[in-house]
Amino acid sequence: MTDYISIKEISKLDHLINEALLLKKDPHAFKHLGVNKTLGLVFLNPSLRTRLSTQKAAKNLGMDVLLMNAAADGWKLEFEDGVLMNQDRQEHFKEAAGVLGRYCDILSLRSFPKFESKAEDYAEKTIKDFKKYSGRPIVNLESGTEHPLQGLADVMTIKENAKKDKPKVVLTWAPHPRALPHSVPNSFASFCLEAGYDLTITHPEGLELSEDFTQGATIEYDQKKAMEGADFVCAKNWAGFSNYGVPVTDKDHWTVTQDKLQGAKFMHCLPVRRNVIVEDAVLDGPDSLVLEQAENRIYAAQAVLKQILESK
Amino acid sequence: MTDYISIKEISKLDHLINEALLLKKDPHAFKHLGVNKTLGLVFLNPSLRTRLSTQKAAKNLGMDVLLMNAAADGWKLEFEDGVLMNQDRQEHFKEAAGVLGRYCDILSLRSFPKFESKAEDYAEKTIKDFKKYSGRPIVNLESGTEHPLQGLADVMTIKENAKKDKPKVVLTWAPHPRALPHSVPNSFASFCLEAGYDLTITHPEGLELSEDFTQGATIEYDQKKAMEGADFVCAKNWAGFSNYGVPVTDKDHWTVTQDKLQGAKFMHCLPVRRNVIVEDAVLDGPDSLVLEQAENRIYAAQAVLKQILESK
Amino acid sequence: MTDYISIKEISKLDHLINEALLLKKDPHAFKHLGVNKTLGLVFLNPSLRTRLSTQKAAKNLGMDVLLMNAAADGWKLEFEDGVLMNQDRQEHFKEAAGVLGRYCDILSLRSFPKFESKAEDYAEKTIKDFKKYSGRPIVNLESGTEHPLQGLADVMTIKENAKKDKPKVVLTWAPHPRALPHSVPNSFASFCLEAGYDLTITHPEGLELSEDFTQGATIEYDQKKAMEGADFVCAKNWAGFSNYGVPVTDKDHWTVTQDKLQGAKFMHCLPVRRNVIVEDAVLDGPDSLVLEQAENRIYAAQAVLKQILESK
Repeated sequence: MTDYISIKEISKLDHLINEALLLKKDPHAFKHLGVNKTLGLVFLNPSLRTRLSTQKAAKNLGMDVLLMNAAADGWKLEFEDGVLMNQDRQEHFKEAAGVLGRYCDILSLRSFPKFESKAEDYAEKTIKDFKKYSGRPIVNLESGTEHPLQGLADVMTIKENAKKDKPKVVLTWAPHPRALPHSVPNSFASFCLEAGYDLTITHPEGLELSEDFTQGATIEYDQKKAMEGADFVCAKNWAGFSNYGVPVTDKDHWTVTQDKLQGAKFMHCLPVRRNVIVEDAVLDGPDSLVLEQAENRIYAAQAVLKQILESK
Repeated sequence: MTDYISIKEISKLDHLINEALLLKKDPHAFKHLGVNKTLGLVFLNPSLRTRLSTQKAAKNLGMDVLLMNAAADGWKLEFEDGVLMNQDRQEHFKEAAGVLGRYCDILSLRSFPKFESKAEDYAEKTIKDFKKYSGRPIVNLESGTEHPLQGLADVMTIKENAKKDKPKVVLTWAPHPRALPHSVPNSFASFCLEAGYDLTITHPEGLELSEDFTQGATIEYDQKKAMEGADFVCAKNWAGFSNYGVPVTDKDHWTVTQDKLQGAKFMHCLPVRRNVIVEDAVLDGPDSLVLEQAENRIYAAQAVLKQILESK
Repeated sequence: MTDYISIKEISKLDHLINEALLLKKDPHAFKHLGVNKTLGLVFLNPSLRTRLSTQKAAKNLGMDVLLMNAAADGWKLEFEDGVLMNQDRQEHFKEAAGVLGRYCDILSLRSFPKFESKAEDYAEKTIKDFKKYSGRPIVNLESGTEHPLQGLADVMTIKENAKKDKPKVVLTWAPHPRALPHSVPNSFASFCLEAGYDLTITHPEGLELSEDFTQGATIEYDQKKAMEGADFVCAKNWAGFSNYGVPVTDKDHWTVTQDKLQGAKFMHCLPVRRNVIVEDAVLDGPDSLVLEQAENRIYAAQAVLKQILESK
């Protein structure tokens, strides 16, 4: 693997999941691999899990880490081409990426969608520009449309906890007061499908995700019906795709409850709004896998970094 | 030692002080002890000394460090139980603690009191929740009522500089424009008492601290009389305990001066407001121990981390 | 070398440039040199290149790094002497420096000029106080009047790219919407002169820099004439020196264009405002050295740290 911007860069998902599971058993087995190599982490948005798990993955491989909270630590960035930069933006992303490419062997970027234009967000210009102008292997820490480290951790968690080869996995939309990106549900769906799981997606009508990520899944608008017989239920809010970026805020009855789960394992990428996305009883109960998912972020990142280091 | 939230977790203070003094002589003697172990530092409030000295202590022991400025780097946290999280708080402290517990072998937290409720601050809910939900050994980087790394550094500094076994130590209240927590004076008093020093506490009437931390000390409302024959004088402001969180701002004559000290060594935890808490002449003179205290924060933290690493 | 606050601390610039060039070829050759040594990086202002390249330099030498974004991570600092600190500033720079001196073997500081008083900025009180109160070797990460790590990286870049021993180097003023410091042009000029290059400085009349840094350079007010036969053109904005801190904002025709360069190599310290300082075509073309300059910041810092470590 030479980049990890999209699920499309994975040649064999099974192999990558197995690598992550092996690293979990022996996290420091490849500590020689990254010696004198530097991973740059660049955040255009907040992060807890991604920030810490990716650092930990790099250190487990013996890498050095350079961390940049782009907005707070550096200069206000311009992303558009051909602009007369005489306003408040002090540095163009082209130069920032170029410089980071000189300082780091592998780079990673978190860049949320701006929800101003579907075409622009789905073109993934920012992370592609980061690749183009840095000239380095890029790891996606959540971009406009994908969160492939989360997707990998999620299918890894399902594999660890599944009692059958082809578990029934349900991705359910859940309420949230603000407009949220598609990157997590897109990656959850595409990774589950690629892993060969039986995936059902449930959401209010009109909230269909891009078919590029969901083709092969069953779409079921009745949440209760969708969850029947589920082994795993992953909750996530997202704003409209057709009605791009518009949040749906009148569907409070979609909150996931213990009652709805019927014994299925509960998943969420975190951070989660308690009693909005899911009730306390689920998160505090024995069927929640949210901390397992978060822990597996370390080994998902480590497997990806290992493959990139080995490919150089 | 398995946690360091309170002075109560220390079985033998003398032993811990001696360990810190030995580490000061040879800081890298145990650099193998923390290899492949991670310390998480989580700040809900600003920090200079604690931030840097604790990192340095961890690195002296060969540990990796993960740093989280919770407010700036991550998501806005909710601390209350049973809340409908549909406002601006995006992540519950339960999940944040749980995730951090998956990424770190030892965790540490700075969490100032909120001064909204004495019962709540003195119950130390936040740092206890951190322990409960992370499942990891916790080091207190200053909580609602204690600052035990500072307390340990302070008695260590007294031990290094004392010319007798049972020096007279005075903790004096001093002026400050804002309401400050009790954690530093509570820890200074309880550590000095546990170390067997002759402790006098002086402050305007009505500013008595909790007896849980001061029992055994002499309380003297006359600052001049309190300081007579003192070997060490530690200044600190605090807001009311009975009159909880209410600052006293009309006692400017309590500022510590060279004249008042009469040759005693001066101590303060820093940061210190010059010419408000203490006049320039004291801080710039030969009797100030404030930088020694700050330096000893490294070895206090290192002794604590060493004991926790060895207990696992 | 025991400090690197000013170009004046360099005994032989040629030797330092050669050291940096050697380190570039084998960055990890001296990884033993900094083991168990700590570099403190303190930022009073934003930074991307300096932040990351200096960290990387330290790690290449095996040093540990402690990073402090002074304003965001710690306490609001007071810099004046003899002040009654009863307003919003919580910690005096004297104590902060003193404490950092206890935690770090070498310290470094970014402290931009305040543009309130020429005498004060040019006295370099802040970085000199940092030296005085920390008692440690100090590396200047850009101060009121100098940016010697940038200056060193710049002459190193010229040496790598020059086709003759004494290339013609032009420093040209360029437009910018805000008042910018003199540190970069001062250091560019003084390093080029010390390196023995043929330096011409061009700017609108009235924008003369301090002669302390430019003596020996040709001053030419006609930008076109100045650039004739240039091998290297370095662009930079600065506010007035005589008319101290006053920006000149009506000289848009000073923007550097491909046409003006006539084949000369283009230099800028970054961040650069595109189409204000220089047009896109130059930065995106083959004659731009801006990323080479940024990369050389690593080896400039490493050569300086190496000399300081070796002098101890």
